[in-house]
Amino acid sequence: MEMLGFVGGTGPQGRGLGLRLAQAGHPVLLGSRDPAKAEEAVAKVHGKDPDVDVRGVSNAEACTAADVVFITIPYGGQAAALEDLADAIGDKIVVNCVNALAFDERGPHPVSVAAGSAAEESQQLLPRARVVGAFQNVSATKLLRPPDPIEADVLICGDDEDARAAVAPLVERIPGLHPVDAGPLRLARPIEELTAVLLAVNKRTGGHSSIRLTGLP
Amino acid sequence: MEMLGFVGGTGPQGRGLGLRLAQAGHPVLLGSRDPAKAEEAVAKVHGKDPDVDVRGVSNAEACTAADVVFITIPYGGQAAALEDLADAIGDKIVVNCVNALAFDERGPHPVSVAAGSAAEESQQLLPRARVVGAFQNVSATKLLRPPDPIEADVLICGDDEDARAAVAPLVERIPGLHPVDAGPLRLARPIEELTAVLLAVNKRTGGHSSIRLTGLP
Repeated sequence: MEMLGFVGGTGPQGRGLGLRLAQAGHPVLLGSRDPAKAEEAVAKVHGKDPDVDVRGVSNAEACTAADVVFITIPYGGQAAALEDLADAIGDKIVVNCVNALAFDERGPHPVSVAAGSAAEESQQLLPRARVVGAFQNVSATKLLRPPDPIEADVLICGDDEDARAAVAPLVERIPGLHPVDAGPLRLARPIEELTAVLLAVNKRTGGHSSIRLTGLP
Repeated sequence: MEMLGFVGGTGPQGRGLGLRLAQAGHPVLLGSRDPAKAEEAVAKVHGKDPDVDVRGVSNAEACTAADVVFITIPYGGQAAALEDLADAIGDKIVVNCVNALAFDERGPHPVSVAAGSAAEESQQLLPRARVVGAFQNVSATKLLRPPDPIEADVLICGDDEDARAAVAPLVERIPGLHPVDAGPLRLARPIEELTAVLLAVNKRTGGHSSIRLTGLP
């Protein structure tokens, strides 16, 4: 199975996706600028499942060694992190899971991104890469509770149809998740920003919400 | 039951919501700039259900006579329509159902709105009104197929908590719809723009998609 590398893989989203995809059989590299943080993240993942093939590496090594690169860094750090990684990533498939959000006394809210969305920004910074937006609306809390299935549809957008199709089976390897092809990358903004709505609902209800699409044939 | 007035009520969204809420017992006024179009819309609604209390009026009359005002006008016409209606609407509850979308050869996509979203724009144009965004993601096609239930959650956002709470029972009166309190009006953008994603998925699948939230307590 493809080796998966995570840029900024030490937070809950990176650890959660890494854990679940490693449980499905993928070798996983959790990348960080800080080797100690990468090791700490791997220890946390092994605390959930000691048998998974997960290692801590630098972000550059995660990109160089991986077949598919995941970006799971907080939005504020994305541009700085990706500037140095374009060569290591080359024309690989990049799965951008970033949500451009901020929080204030009124709760979570989207922040405006000049490129339109975090995913489109990453495509600009990685012009040769085949960027796909996916997994933005999946609860990291739920990812970190294996083996519980996560009842959610994962909207996949990107301008390379083959890349979208290649990401769909990765979605299906996490119990309960179903991929939905949402088309071009310019639709990443509403998908990313929807996470602010889901977090606002979580705050009111104590839930860990995701979405399912209804009304499909 | 409250009388409901629809600004731009002659399109599929206005007719669909008007039909369903009239079937629930509300008197409904479908407003239009053009009296002939309003009459035509009422005839279409009565073609689906001859027993509902639905009448065609001017947009101004829909606002003056209604207890709650719905805005179901295409985004391109919203600003011009609302400019003259602020006095007629006053401090009433306004349910903004507008999606700021456009379509080109690559499909549906969000259009940028200076105010952030169509709902926020309407709040700026109607400063005394209590604007709530709701129903943006509900399929008009499904609304126009009574008595079939519509399996969807309706995200309700607005800065007036009482107004959000007042709109929730209106949602519940349409079979299958459930209200979800999403908090402040600044979250209207992702909710509106999500409709572009749903329409893109519809185009690929032939469905009439809406969303349900999962992972709530």
